[in-house]
Amino acid sequence: MTEQSRRLVLATRPSGMVDDSVVRVENVAVPEPGDGEAVVRVRYLSIDPTIRTWMDDAPGYLPPIEIDAVIRSGGIGEVVASKSDSYAVGDTVFGMLGWQDHAVIGSEGITAQVVPEGVDPTAALSVFGTTGMTAYFGLLDIGQPKEGDTVVVSGAAGATGSVVGQIAKLKGAGHVVGIAGSAEKCKWLVDDLGFDAAVDYKTDDVAARLRDECPDGIDVYFDNVGGEILDTCLAQLALKARVVCCGAISAYNDRSSAYGLTNYFSLIMKRARMEGFLILDYLDRFGEAQAEMLGWVLDGKVKHAVHLVDGLEHAPDALNLLFTGGNTGKVIVKLEVD
Amino acid sequence: MTEQSRRLVLATRPSGMVDDSVVRVENVAVPEPGDGEAVVRVRYLSIDPTIRTWMDDAPGYLPPIEIDAVIRSGGIGEVVASKSDSYAVGDTVFGMLGWQDHAVIGSEGITAQVVPEGVDPTAALSVFGTTGMTAYFGLLDIGQPKEGDTVVVSGAAGATGSVVGQIAKLKGAGHVVGIAGSAEKCKWLVDDLGFDAAVDYKTDDVAARLRDECPDGIDVYFDNVGGEILDTCLAQLALKARVVCCGAISAYNDRSSAYGLTNYFSLIMKRARMEGFLILDYLDRFGEAQAEMLGWVLDGKVKHAVHLVDGLEHAPDALNLLFTGGNTGKVIVKLEVD
Repeated sequence: MTEQSRRLVLATRPSGMVDDSVVRVENVAVPEPGDGEAVVRVRYLSIDPTIRTWMDDAPGYLPPIEIDAVIRSGGIGEVVASKSDSYAVGDTVFGMLGWQDHAVIGSEGITAQVVPEGVDPTAALSVFGTTGMTAYFGLLDIGQPKEGDTVVVSGAAGATGSVVGQIAKLKGAGHVVGIAGSAEKCKWLVDDLGFDAAVDYKTDDVAARLRDECPDGIDVYFDNVGGEILDTCLAQLALKARVVCCGAISAYNDRSSAYGLTNYFSLIMKRARMEGFLILDYLDRFGEAQAEMLGWVLDGKVKHAVHLVDGLEHAPDALNLLFTGGNTGKVIVKLEVD
Repeated sequence: MTEQSRRLVLATRPSGMVDDSVVRVENVAVPEPGDGEAVVRVRYLSIDPTIRTWMDDAPGYLPPIEIDAVIRSGGIGEVVASKSDSYAVGDTVFGMLGWQDHAVIGSEGITAQVVPEGVDPTAALSVFGTTGMTAYFGLLDIGQPKEGDTVVVSGAAGATGSVVGQIAKLKGAGHVVGIAGSAEKCKWLVDDLGFDAAVDYKTDDVAARLRDECPDGIDVYFDNVGGEILDTCLAQLALKARVVCCGAISAYNDRSSAYGLTNYFSLIMKRARMEGFLILDYLDRFGEAQAEMLGWVLDGKVKHAVHLVDGLEHAPDALNLLFTGGNTGKVIVKLEVD
């Protein structure tokens, strides 16, 4: 019998959370590599909010995932067959492997990079991967924190937010405040990661807490959530503040009923700036950032958490966790090893 | 009988337009200058949307106008009495003279600058004044248009917007589109000022017209109005676009029911920037800008329109014109000459 391989394809476009009707499991034969190609056994999948945006039939920075196509996703795996000069059997590779047991890379397939030996795959997908790089370049390149600045980050217990706050402290921010969705997460931010304060948006009066924590206003606001929290922070900007638009997780599941920002007026009064970015634009600068990040991680100055979900078939649940706030740190799906 | 002088004071804070209950006319004696002071007969008042914001009891870049205080306003007048070394009788001066027949300047009163001879007072209040400077620095410093860029400006038939479009063309913009509120204004923008196209927001489908005019998206959007038009433009930004937040005239009369922006997501997808500024921050650079503007005006390359309203008592109506769109170009109140 031919060995089977599972793949999760987009059955229909979701409205709201991703349920069983959205994703279909298919069983196919394990692919064979063509000339110039290699086949990868996927081991870990990086679960990121942006995957949800690719499921919509809406213009974005990448084309929407097509109906019946495998769900696009970053991942790490091991080369198990190769007819390519670039990949050898046994190599660990990172790329847009997708929600499937086996991916074909090279040639006209997916591009993948070999991961150096000694790098833990979950770290490669989080703090040294796009999540950590998003934190690094978003904060430093767009947010441009200055010595003594007050920095606020939302989605602070997430993979990106948790790293943003730590880098801000390392770069001399005076006061770093995280916004997260539970007392436990808030405690983790302050006790374990060194945030100066944390606001629980589910139980606290966010505006009042921010006024207390940021009496001179917010110099840098790193926004992962959009919507009402973004609007609240806009009203409390300091002069010449920078708002880093990284994500708008509050709006991904239903763009049509998105909360409307009314405090943008504050950008004028405070001569402030609001700027978006995509980590794809920084690929050629990953080297410098990864080197600095490696130093911090080895010195214990940047900590990161991984929220592992077992089993390819649970990838949709793992994605939903990001929108219910069920995770602390990076969500990664671990596939069963054969 | 002592000579009388009128002044318009804030009787109560407005909600919406400025009606008779908001502004009270008072008759007082013409003031005498104290030591170091001069008295100015006000000739022209600069009517700007920002005056409306000062009438609210809301935090802003200047303190709110106090109840019973003269309405703050830029103006030009003639020194009629002086005990100051800085001002001689007969000097023409510009400053925050206020809605009144006579203003006291110098000492602890209002600061004013002498206007060089030969400069037309209405030009000094418009194209060479804060309005023209707002257009100049807002577009060039914040908008940073590049050769060939597509530039869109709202409030395009207003004092600032009309100059923005002309400077954009002079600086090499490829396609300049104005958004204004009547067919007549649109015709003026294209036929007289050299805009490439104009959209009538009262009759046109703004989103559809902008898609036609800006097939590759908007590189620079100079926003004078905020609200729905700003949101429409956000959805049509080009990669790395700059949105210049200059004013939000659609929201000044009622901030609480302001239209909420939902397309801010586009700042991420397009790696775009939205930035506010205030012309007060550029006072020390007015010289360079005024010199360049003078050249353009003398060469007929920048044209400007003035909408004169006669009579101090009509200053509130003049202010309301800005919100009903009743003006083309700069609104200036001309006081009766004694």
